[in-house]
Amino acid sequence: MKIPGFLASAVPAGIKYQNRLDLGLILSRVPAVIAGVFTTNAVKAAPVIAGIERISHGPSYARAIVVNSGNANACTGDQGMKNVETTARLVAQALGIGPKDVLVSSTGVIGRPMPMERIEAAVPGLVAGLSEDGMEQVAQAILTTDLVTKTASRQIRVGGKIVTIGGIAKGSGMIAPSMGSPPHATMLAFLMTDAALDPAWARAALTRSTNATFNRIIVDGDTSTNDTVLLLANSMAGNLPLVGDADGKPFEQALHDVCAELARKIVEDGEGATKCVSVFVTGARTDESADAVARAIATSPLVKTAFFGEDPNWGRILAAAGRAETDLDQTRISLSIDDIPIVSQGIGLGDGQEALAKAAMSKRAFAVKIDLGLGAGSSQVVTCDLSADYVRINADYRT
Amino acid sequence: MKIPGFLASAVPAGIKYQNRLDLGLILSRVPAVIAGVFTTNAVKAAPVIAGIERISHGPSYARAIVVNSGNANACTGDQGMKNVETTARLVAQALGIGPKDVLVSSTGVIGRPMPMERIEAAVPGLVAGLSEDGMEQVAQAILTTDLVTKTASRQIRVGGKIVTIGGIAKGSGMIAPSMGSPPHATMLAFLMTDAALDPAWARAALTRSTNATFNRIIVDGDTSTNDTVLLLANSMAGNLPLVGDADGKPFEQALHDVCAELARKIVEDGEGATKCVSVFVTGARTDESADAVARAIATSPLVKTAFFGEDPNWGRILAAAGRAETDLDQTRISLSIDDIPIVSQGIGLGDGQEALAKAAMSKRAFAVKIDLGLGAGSSQVVTCDLSADYVRINADYRT
Repeated sequence: MKIPGFLASAVPAGIKYQNRLDLGLILSRVPAVIAGVFTTNAVKAAPVIAGIERISHGPSYARAIVVNSGNANACTGDQGMKNVETTARLVAQALGIGPKDVLVSSTGVIGRPMPMERIEAAVPGLVAGLSEDGMEQVAQAILTTDLVTKTASRQIRVGGKIVTIGGIAKGSGMIAPSMGSPPHATMLAFLMTDAALDPAWARAALTRSTNATFNRIIVDGDTSTNDTVLLLANSMAGNLPLVGDADGKPFEQALHDVCAELARKIVEDGEGATKCVSVFVTGARTDESADAVARAIATSPLVKTAFFGEDPNWGRILAAAGRAETDLDQTRISLSIDDIPIVSQGIGLGDGQEALAKAAMSKRAFAVKIDLGLGAGSSQVVTCDLSADYVRINADYRT
Repeated sequence: MKIPGFLASAVPAGIKYQNRLDLGLILSRVPAVIAGVFTTNAVKAAPVIAGIERISHGPSYARAIVVNSGNANACTGDQGMKNVETTARLVAQALGIGPKDVLVSSTGVIGRPMPMERIEAAVPGLVAGLSEDGMEQVAQAILTTDLVTKTASRQIRVGGKIVTIGGIAKGSGMIAPSMGSPPHATMLAFLMTDAALDPAWARAALTRSTNATFNRIIVDGDTSTNDTVLLLANSMAGNLPLVGDADGKPFEQALHDVCAELARKIVEDGEGATKCVSVFVTGARTDESADAVARAIATSPLVKTAFFGEDPNWGRILAAAGRAETDLDQTRISLSIDDIPIVSQGIGLGDGQEALAKAAMSKRAFAVKIDLGLGAGSSQVVTCDLSADYVRINADYRT
């Protein structure tokens, strides 16, 4: 994946593991408009605290993102904050740009000091390796418990110019992103485009896309200290800066689509996941109520283990709904797996329908559609199952 | 366990499995004051709907509880409600008492019709088997995924009389009871005493005890459609009816203690559980905030798998806290496992302390104590770990 005007590189810095890419760098050839959304968790990693400050109060333009896996630099106090600054400075010096031109991002274990001597030793090689072909390597370097790299891109025509939007992401566990204003995983996503964007509009568009995509995925329901989505837009396509007018719409749609594809890839690669399940809630009194129901279903261990078992155990789904929203009328609830109705008016439709639903659940991806029969509120989230592998992965993550 | 004036019996009715006790009966020799708290889940099982109606608007006295496992009689519509009535009537007729004298309770699979012909066939044997020694059999009959029976009892002196409080309970999965007014599992608990209690006071005391015990346990965070706690007080001890005065205090304490013992036994027998973990939150701005943090920690899959792995992964605990309460100051948080501090001012105290904590976590039971450093709010819940066995148990529960 190449995005015009962007170079990338990754090296094995030995941050947690040896001989594994764990430090990545993305560089725009020219200053790029920046936008970012970050975890709303009250416990924020040092690079998140620094990133929020940088995006909120710093210049609208930056040049580079340096990102490591293996260490979250979270719960690391003042030293953690200093280490963010030092990392930015080291990279800036090697690139010959200003330290404010470098954004820092981290993912990995919480509460361990960042091994700065390894970062410092790795920076020269990192910078020397920059190339137009390096983005896949960065996509590799940011992985933690992920099994596969996640990339997505779109090209559209904007104002007579072809523009490209490309993104890379990581995330497998601690995934229930709530980022931004208001935005939930450790998930990281870095989006690059050669489009010219108005800075304020870029931030608004990124927040809307994040709310509709990354903030609507759930692996385990745990929200990370490090969730970060950053967008760099470097103007090299030569379009007039987009501010949300007619030209903005197709761009925002493409941005949304890239985010949606990356978000779904995170769920598909969820820790131990064997199923990708779209949960649609309709007929709620309000969208907020629908959202609470969708998230309760998507985080219920009993529902998620039933997904793993390919068991259309709709009683667990209804129980999760009724826990989240106490103002339900169970006699109005209907439920389908894909397009196979299994509950009507709160009552099961029998073994025949359930057998069909079970067959649908044997697929790698399926949908749960619940209609509460009360109003026009709706919501949607994408989640995965809870497998024995999930437990295995997380019972010995650190040891 | 014997409680004066109470008889009990259980039979294998073949409701879901053959040759397993699954239908139980408790009978008071004389009319007993009744009190009950039920799930707040909007999706309520038929016997819960009937029980709320009965406790709220029916006579203050009853004689019997009939309870089955294997089938929750939940999401069963009008037929489910009729089946509750029929069950009460069948038992009442066999006992020679009124149908309103019989309370009905169920636990098991949601959404399947109750096999009434098996209930009807089993009632004569159930009634014929009543004896003072039958309570352990009922404790056996109400189990579902539970591995062990759960009983508790206390004797105290009240107004010159010895009174006995005994209870039986079941519950292993779908445990995050929220019962009553306001009360959370399928958990069932039946409490019997020979004390004389004022009916209104009995209900208030039961609600307080439930809120402090059953409503403070979490296995999986899923709240059942069937959670029920019932108390029968038959006055046979000969004390003057307790109304909350000086004599009420020791009784209520004993009631609380029986509930607390049963509640803890539910967590210890949680599906797949290998650890029983008490989560103490102090220093919150309010008790409500502390409670939200305690429940987030106790339901976090990442925290619970770390418990299973005996990994003092405090970063996951802090991340869960910060997800639940966004108004935290991470630099004020301290955390201990039992009495071993591992976090101070939001920063880890190092590998030595973690090694000690890890050793503490190798025990069957330990405590997580988190102080938020903000105020006087506090809360406590009791939970278990999330093991690979949990997944195995729940991925093929119905199949």
